Amino acid sequence: MASSSSLTLSQALLARAISVHGSNPSSDRVSLSSITIPTFSGLKSSSTSSSSPSRMARRRAKSSRGGAVRAAAVETLDKTTETSLVEKSINTIRFLAIDAVEKANSGHPGLPMGCAPMGHVLYDEVMRYNPKNPYWFNRDRFVLSAGHGCMLQYALLHLAGYDSVKEEDLKNFRQWGSRTPGHPENFETPGIEVTTGPLGQGIANAVGLALAEKHLAARFNKPDNEIVDHYTYAILGDGCQMEGISNEACSLAGHWGLGKLIAFYDDNHISIDGDTDIAFTENVGQRFEALGWHVIWVKNGNTGYDDIRAAIKEAKAVKDKPTLIKVTTTIGYGSPNKANSYSVHGSALGAKEVDATRKNLGWPFEPFHVPEDVKQHWSRHTPEGAALEAEWNAKFAEYEKKYSEEAAELKSIITGELPAGWEKALPTYTPESPADATRNLSQQNLNALAKVLPGLLGGSADLASSNMTLLKMFGDFQKDTPEERNVRFGVREHGMGAICNGIALHSPGLFPYCATFFVFTDYMRAAIRISALCEAGVIYVMTHDSIGLGEDGPTHQPIEHLASFRAMPNVLMLRPADGNETAGAYKVAVLNRKRPSILALSRQKLPQLPGTSIEGVEKGGYIVSDNSSGNKPDVILIGTGSELEIAAKAAEELRKEGKAVRVVSLVSWELFDEQSDAYKESVFPAAVSARVSIEAGSTFGWEKIVGSKGKAIGINSFGASAPAGKIYKEFGITPEAVIAAAKQVS
Amino acid sequence: MASSSSLTLSQALLARAISVHGSNPSSDRVSLSSITIPTFSGLKSSSTSSSSPSRMARRRAKSSRGGAVRAAAVETLDKTTETSLVEKSINTIRFLAIDAVEKANSGHPGLPMGCAPMGHVLYDEVMRYNPKNPYWFNRDRFVLSAGHGCMLQYALLHLAGYDSVKEEDLKNFRQWGSRTPGHPENFETPGIEVTTGPLGQGIANAVGLALAEKHLAARFNKPDNEIVDHYTYAILGDGCQMEGISNEACSLAGHWGLGKLIAFYDDNHISIDGDTDIAFTENVGQRFEALGWHVIWVKNGNTGYDDIRAAIKEAKAVKDKPTLIKVTTTIGYGSPNKANSYSVHGSALGAKEVDATRKNLGWPFEPFHVPEDVKQHWSRHTPEGAALEAEWNAKFAEYEKKYSEEAAELKSIITGELPAGWEKALPTYTPESPADATRNLSQQNLNALAKVLPGLLGGSADLASSNMTLLKMFGDFQKDTPEERNVRFGVREHGMGAICNGIALHSPGLFPYCATFFVFTDYMRAAIRISALCEAGVIYVMTHDSIGLGEDGPTHQPIEHLASFRAMPNVLMLRPADGNETAGAYKVAVLNRKRPSILALSRQKLPQLPGTSIEGVEKGGYIVSDNSSGNKPDVILIGTGSELEIAAKAAEELRKEGKAVRVVSLVSWELFDEQSDAYKESVFPAAVSARVSIEAGSTFGWEKIVGSKGKAIGINSFGASAPAGKIYKEFGITPEAVIAAAKQVS
Repeated sequence: MASSSSLTLSQALLARAISVHGSNPSSDRVSLSSITIPTFSGLKSSSTSSSSPSRMARRRAKSSRGGAVRAAAVETLDKTTETSLVEKSINTIRFLAIDAVEKANSGHPGLPMGCAPMGHVLYDEVMRYNPKNPYWFNRDRFVLSAGHGCMLQYALLHLAGYDSVKEEDLKNFRQWGSRTPGHPENFETPGIEVTTGPLGQGIANAVGLALAEKHLAARFNKPDNEIVDHYTYAILGDGCQMEGISNEACSLAGHWGLGKLIAFYDDNHISIDGDTDIAFTENVGQRFEALGWHVIWVKNGNTGYDDIRAAIKEAKAVKDKPTLIKVTTTIGYGSPNKANSYSVHGSALGAKEVDATRKNLGWPFEPFHVPEDVKQHWSRHTPEGAALEAEWNAKFAEYEKKYSEEAAELKSIITGELPAGWEKALPTYTPESPADATRNLSQQNLNALAKVLPGLLGGSADLASSNMTLLKMFGDFQKDTPEERNVRFGVREHGMGAICNGIALHSPGLFPYCATFFVFTDYMRAAIRISALCEAGVIYVMTHDSIGLGEDGPTHQPIEHLASFRAMPNVLMLRPADGNETAGAYKVAVLNRKRPSILALSRQKLPQLPGTSIEGVEKGGYIVSDNSSGNKPDVILIGTGSELEIAAKAAEELRKEGKAVRVVSLVSWELFDEQSDAYKESVFPAAVSARVSIEAGSTFGWEKIVGSKGKAIGINSFGASAPAGKIYKEFGITPEAVIAAAKQVS
Repeated sequence: MASSSSLTLSQALLARAISVHGSNPSSDRVSLSSITIPTFSGLKSSSTSSSSPSRMARRRAKSSRGGAVRAAAVETLDKTTETSLVEKSINTIRFLAIDAVEKANSGHPGLPMGCAPMGHVLYDEVMRYNPKNPYWFNRDRFVLSAGHGCMLQYALLHLAGYDSVKEEDLKNFRQWGSRTPGHPENFETPGIEVTTGPLGQGIANAVGLALAEKHLAARFNKPDNEIVDHYTYAILGDGCQMEGISNEACSLAGHWGLGKLIAFYDDNHISIDGDTDIAFTENVGQRFEALGWHVIWVKNGNTGYDDIRAAIKEAKAVKDKPTLIKVTTTIGYGSPNKANSYSVHGSALGAKEVDATRKNLGWPFEPFHVPEDVKQHWSRHTPEGAALEAEWNAKFAEYEKKYSEEAAELKSIITGELPAGWEKALPTYTPESPADATRNLSQQNLNALAKVLPGLLGGSADLASSNMTLLKMFGDFQKDTPEERNVRFGVREHGMGAICNGIALHSPGLFPYCATFFVFTDYMRAAIRISALCEAGVIYVMTHDSIGLGEDGPTHQPIEHLASFRAMPNVLMLRPADGNETAGAYKVAVLNRKRPSILALSRQKLPQLPGTSIEGVEKGGYIVSDNSSGNKPDVILIGTGSELEIAAKAAEELRKEGKAVRVVSLVSWELFDEQSDAYKESVFPAAVSARVSIEAGSTFGWEKIVGSKGKAIGINSFGASAPAGKIYKEFGITPEAVIAAAKQVS
């Protein structure tokens, strides 16, 4: 069968998406194990599969129903499902949300009640997806940027037939271990694309998803086979609109002409503090026009179903601009006493008002009830979705036959499988290699990796020539050259991070990287935290990582940043010292697809140190040099990044004086923490309390390493504006300081 | 003399501004001590002063020249200084910037060369200031939001006669200990209003400055005496425009109708990565119109002096809207080979190009030369500025006579002197007081303080009813009610923080506070870092400070945030446990005007604990209860905030079993660090290594407190969505866990 290899592709992807979950040793989320494995339905049997599917894939294949279902015309913009049934479906969504929030006595009923009409039109009439394989590559993506309204999406996933949201999941809304947490979390609920809640993140994720589609379509589509072809939809509220991140991301979306991004602005005029008039009186439509978007206004979002349908049709017709559909709705629509007020935003309606709303909307049913005709109506999405995927699988098989090279590349992007031997592309260095800044060494790695990783793409927030992030063999990803891989984010760090989260979550084989000065992680910290939480393996290339940047002064000099990321869960904070360590950091970053890596890199030149290695970096901390025996050095000197050289210099001097000195590079605390106790003891023997660390940053947290008898050399105040060498000296980040401290503690 | 009391006011303010610098024990900046004291000039002798001026003020008074100078008409929009002299002045500015960058071989010549014309018009023709008293209350404020172009402002301050920027300071640009660091820093250079460099911060600070002016004018101006009356000017570049924070702040400025805010947009079409066309093609003017601004375009910013003048005149005539003057300039104007390219943005021109530029602009002078006629022309600002201040002092004396009550209030806002006994307003609690969430207790404090601190104003980022920040006796600060003190920031955390920095730096007696959920400090971290760096004593009211917030889940639950702020220099991170500690936290926050305070507050109810106190909080850490003797407890239990109760409960159980247990509240690590060694030993005796800490957050950094033999109980993964009690139990944040750990370590 032509589709067999494609089928394998889908399965491999699904298997991967599931199997990788929970495999991250530093992420001990309790509820990961509660994710159930969706069964394959509506797909052909995989018994003819030529490759060897995983155990899970085989188990799933057994339960799949044979026989192809022809893809129905899911695009039903002009179709007129009986309006009464549409309204019944919309009210079902409303009451599922009302009932779940009521049962939890916690949550946000207002948005689902107001946005149920657009939700219905999207999931029932417009979007193309396969509920039984939430990871089908060519699905339309939907992002609820106003994440607090997650019951809207849970209700839609439930109706659409996703196995991740069964009735019992709705009843467990916001409870321990449930798949229906208080905000949408992709890692908990298959069918949720990204993690939202912190406002503005979702619309920026959506820009990333749409960027990924545009990029992959441009690279892989052929005149006779548009193998990449989906839309990205988002719903955002007033809160998202006020956040700066959304303006950043939407300015880029306009610039890039992301025509397949369609965002619904839930214009309900209510935010938590009351009427938006108290703080938000700008003209949003005009702003979006200024940003290069097509703007449509649906004045009656509560019952104007045809207007919503027409707006989507119009949006799709505009191919060179993203579209904002401003939909004026009533928050809490249907609640006779609470609609159109902030009281319906974030609390349960209360039994009395739930009753009143049932009466008002003519809803005689018990809580959580889905009327039979509504159930019946939505049931078609399971076979239709399966058919859509099967059709695409067949299309992919055709593609593979005709364009085998491109297909292999696309496949690796879809599955995230790394090409065999990819790591051989990483450059290596010897102590004789010329001294260089790790930001430059980083660029060597990026350019080497770009040759072997088809999904590597990214760029800088207007500091490409400082962060050294240009891929030399590629041009700029732009409106008219979307096949290129250098992304120009402009000075928009926060949007950049969130866009990269969207890219990473689009396909497991996309490796987005982004860059700015390390200190400006402060601008994008909320997006980095979401990378960590939503398991997006974004590579953060953060240069100018200390006072070593010199004259720009304290506004530009990170101090507390290393500590602040070491404290953040599920982040790999890496501070390589030279060429080999930079290559090691990239190896780690590429391999860790479920957690972001932050590479702190120097502006200043650093020597290639004897003893550094890629393998060492993979352990997080390791011995770089040692003249002791029996695991009993007189003193252990510990450095990271640019200060490893200082530790090594101090060791040289101390050894001349007859001391047994061990030098340890602690390039990543998180990786080191994951090593065995025996390995840790081999690096930091408990019996050796004479330890000195040196790092040009806050000493906060270093007590863990040096203990109460050791000494941490660092900087606990802001930096200063002067040439780098001078600042190092004035702040006492010198071999002399290390030597003095070593003598003091040993 | 009528003006004597006003004169004292000016002096007190200046003395305060200087004496407080460097008094902050945790801020060990090297160059603070290098700030020289501006001498009073052009002010009447203070020998008649009725109050007792400080030593510094007396020393300054000795050097002041007697005799009043009548204020000249500084408003010279229609005045025609000979154009050739204007051009000479503008070229002086350009070459001071070129020469300083060249000498430092580091810096940004491009912006000063392009913006010199608007800089000249502002400082020489438009702005009202007194160079010999940079802290004169009623001065016009200027903010260089594009802070990298700081040589523009240093050149202007130099020409205008500010003592902070002498020729030798220009020659020491970007050198260790100089007053001319790589970006503008208010704490280094009198005459600089705020600290900029991180893009977008400055324009948001300017919104805060303009808010402060509008608020104070509305509160204190009388029909016959407009005692508060100044403009706020800013220059921002393409980079600032791309940052989300600027859209947030400017949306608020438009909403509030800040008519006296006039921002120049340096539209030079070049950013670091090249032509802005690669990432920034939105219509900025249209966006600002959408935000409610008046927009003017000066098409020739290089030589269109009259156009610049006319634009300012037009801007001033529009009183109900802020104005954006888009000024199209050439970056690096005058450089024959580098103008209009990114190469002139951030590097020295190089000797050859400096020569070529000198030829091109007809500039025969040596480096750093200010031609005599230019010097002469600018010299009038010293007497004129003194006259302006003297005139205002006289006006204030009149005001004081007629409106003594208001004058006293305004004076306290201008000087920052706290009313005697203010701290008596802080509420106190006993163990019998009802249990309450610290966010509610915080509101009691805010409302109590608002009665005694006339400068307290602030609000929340659309979470007023969750953060509990409303001042009940006041209405909303709005366009038409600017005298009110509840500020509605909308969902704009980053803009909010930076606006508060502007408010704090407007006048020492303004106490801005702002609020959101603690986790969303991630959105505003860059602004908080600037608070810390620029010594703005903003009060950050951060509620929902742990997994204790419950169902909203991991996107909303802070984990690493306490650690991340403990690592940030010059921040007071406070986590009070109950009513007395919340009052203590506010006392500390009010007293620390040179560093921001972050209050982490609970959503959930907490009991009023025996042993807590305001005085304890002031020490950062203290013993809450103890049944040991001789400073030798069997075990020390340490808690913060909501977990102090857990520590206390565990202690109770352990004591029943006969253990000698000390419970310590470590409410602020920074304050505790500042205590004497003896005090520290009295709380944490070195001999007692049996220590257990409990905090519902990352354990990162706790090794410093509990030592290698102690145990830190906390959460090192992301949180979860469920009711709070359930999450606490599942994460092991319980008395049982403390008891078990205590037995293990003791």
